[in-house]
Amino acid sequence: MSEIPLVAGIELGGTKCICILARGPDAIEEIVRIPTTRPDETLAAIEAVLDRWSGFVAIGIASFGPVGIDRRGGDYGHITSTPKPGWAGTDVAGRLQRRYAVPTGFHTDVVGAALAEARWGAAQGLADIAYVTVGTGVGAGLIAGHRPVDGLMHSELGHIRPVRMPGDDWIGSCPFHGACLEGLVSGPAIAARLGHPADEAPADHPVWTGVAEALGQLCHTLVLTGIPRRIVIGGGVMGAGHLFPRVRAALTRSLGGYIALPEPTLVDTFVVPPALGGNAGPLGAIILGGQALGDSVGGSGSSAFMSY
Amino acid sequence: MSEIPLVAGIELGGTKCICILARGPDAIEEIVRIPTTRPDETLAAIEAVLDRWSGFVAIGIASFGPVGIDRRGGDYGHITSTPKPGWAGTDVAGRLQRRYAVPTGFHTDVVGAALAEARWGAAQGLADIAYVTVGTGVGAGLIAGHRPVDGLMHSELGHIRPVRMPGDDWIGSCPFHGACLEGLVSGPAIAARLGHPADEAPADHPVWTGVAEALGQLCHTLVLTGIPRRIVIGGGVMGAGHLFPRVRAALTRSLGGYIALPEPTLVDTFVVPPALGGNAGPLGAIILGGQALGDSVGGSGSSAFMSY
Repeated sequence: MSEIPLVAGIELGGTKCICILARGPDAIEEIVRIPTTRPDETLAAIEAVLDRWSGFVAIGIASFGPVGIDRRGGDYGHITSTPKPGWAGTDVAGRLQRRYAVPTGFHTDVVGAALAEARWGAAQGLADIAYVTVGTGVGAGLIAGHRPVDGLMHSELGHIRPVRMPGDDWIGSCPFHGACLEGLVSGPAIAARLGHPADEAPADHPVWTGVAEALGQLCHTLVLTGIPRRIVIGGGVMGAGHLFPRVRAALTRSLGGYIALPEPTLVDTFVVPPALGGNAGPLGAIILGGQALGDSVGGSGSSAFMSY
Repeated sequence: MSEIPLVAGIELGGTKCICILARGPDAIEEIVRIPTTRPDETLAAIEAVLDRWSGFVAIGIASFGPVGIDRRGGDYGHITSTPKPGWAGTDVAGRLQRRYAVPTGFHTDVVGAALAEARWGAAQGLADIAYVTVGTGVGAGLIAGHRPVDGLMHSELGHIRPVRMPGDDWIGSCPFHGACLEGLVSGPAIAARLGHPADEAPADHPVWTGVAEALGQLCHTLVLTGIPRRIVIGGGVMGAGHLFPRVRAALTRSLGGYIALPEPTLVDTFVVPPALGGNAGPLGAIILGGQALGDSVGGSGSSAFMSY
């Protein structure tokens, strides 16, 4: 991946969409924000923006999930089983690809942010990273060789089951798994446990001990995938920053000296906060568009699928 | 990946090496077994076999680990931190590549078996699989898009920390992690717990309940990576076969209906035993050699690294 041409990027979020016409963070031509309402209304508003833009040679979409990313699957480019009213089964990538007839990349907002942080942010220059967001939910994106790690679906490692702290038997808030990671450390999970918003709990509140241990176990699992050279953790719950030293300590403890990981021994630079803030999603969409364009002009053996 | 040319494959195991000259399972020209002793002696014996062979256009090596698989790392192609006397730091791929001057592929024996099962075995035709071996240790290999999932290192997901069964506080046998998966379900772990070999415990022995639950959690974690369309589980501990229905049930319970996974709902064909037996390793080495050859003649953007 060298220079990115002019791409129309869309971060499709649960409450707002960000449309960006750009080549990268230093070459942004325009950014437009649109509220996310009903699918037809929202996609029409996105199209009104893109209709006005000219010169883009690809489209990239980083969407809230779950989404279909299996290019051989019937739901590729769709939002699949979301509880968000009206959105389940919405074809996003296909609709835009047909309208603009340019290569169209599509993935989760988490993977989009991961790509952007790996290219321009907190993991700049690294081909292989994990990106975690801890907010309303817990998302974990995996990038290997500068590409999303894809198979049947996208990573959902935010739903692993961490070992509990001794004596902690709170049932957790995940409707599917109870005390999975998301059910223990997401903002709503912590709020449900405390009876008040997570950010009202001071740094020395005992709730953070278990949160840090659970996130340390997520990092342990991510390290054991073999992929990441760095783990970037963002999202509202991480905002205060006091969790980082504790998560790093929990990871180091949990790995127990197992195998010589060069980066994890430098754990302060292995588990880091993001650098791009709210721009990571739309900038990731630019990269997804650029990758779709690159695949469409050949180079990859799977170009027929990759170009959508 | 279409047809594989004639490749010299080597499965480098802890007690024996298998050298194979083949294009695939139906085109095996010769198989030679060599005991694994000291590194110099063993590698010289392998070279004596390869010196006698002619016509192979690539070499593939599937080795016991841990191994260096980062092509930009100084230990690429080496066995790294093994406790096996004399073998730590042994350069395997570099030595053979220099001697025979053909493209040389290198990975773990687990990934080798995974590639072979995906091409010719229990996951035939699937691009994205996980392969688990439960024996002396627990190995887990990940294949996406027909390729090993590589980043900093190879998968070590056999060392995840599963949630324990209520009331089970056995300390586990892993010297690094205690009650990690390998420390709970490997053959030596079960034997240490029982005081006798695992295969002497009948199918209705209570020890298997916890083993199946822990393996179900490994499958849960593997599914959440997003990668596998099938999970193949082999190794001595799985030999009796009675564990499969229990592991499938544990996986289904653990996923809790989360997201619509097409294959896991057909869990009997999602978690399966291997089909290639002892030939998976050497046949995987053939694929690793074929992939190295393919990369060396172009097609991949990373051909310079992939050809070693």
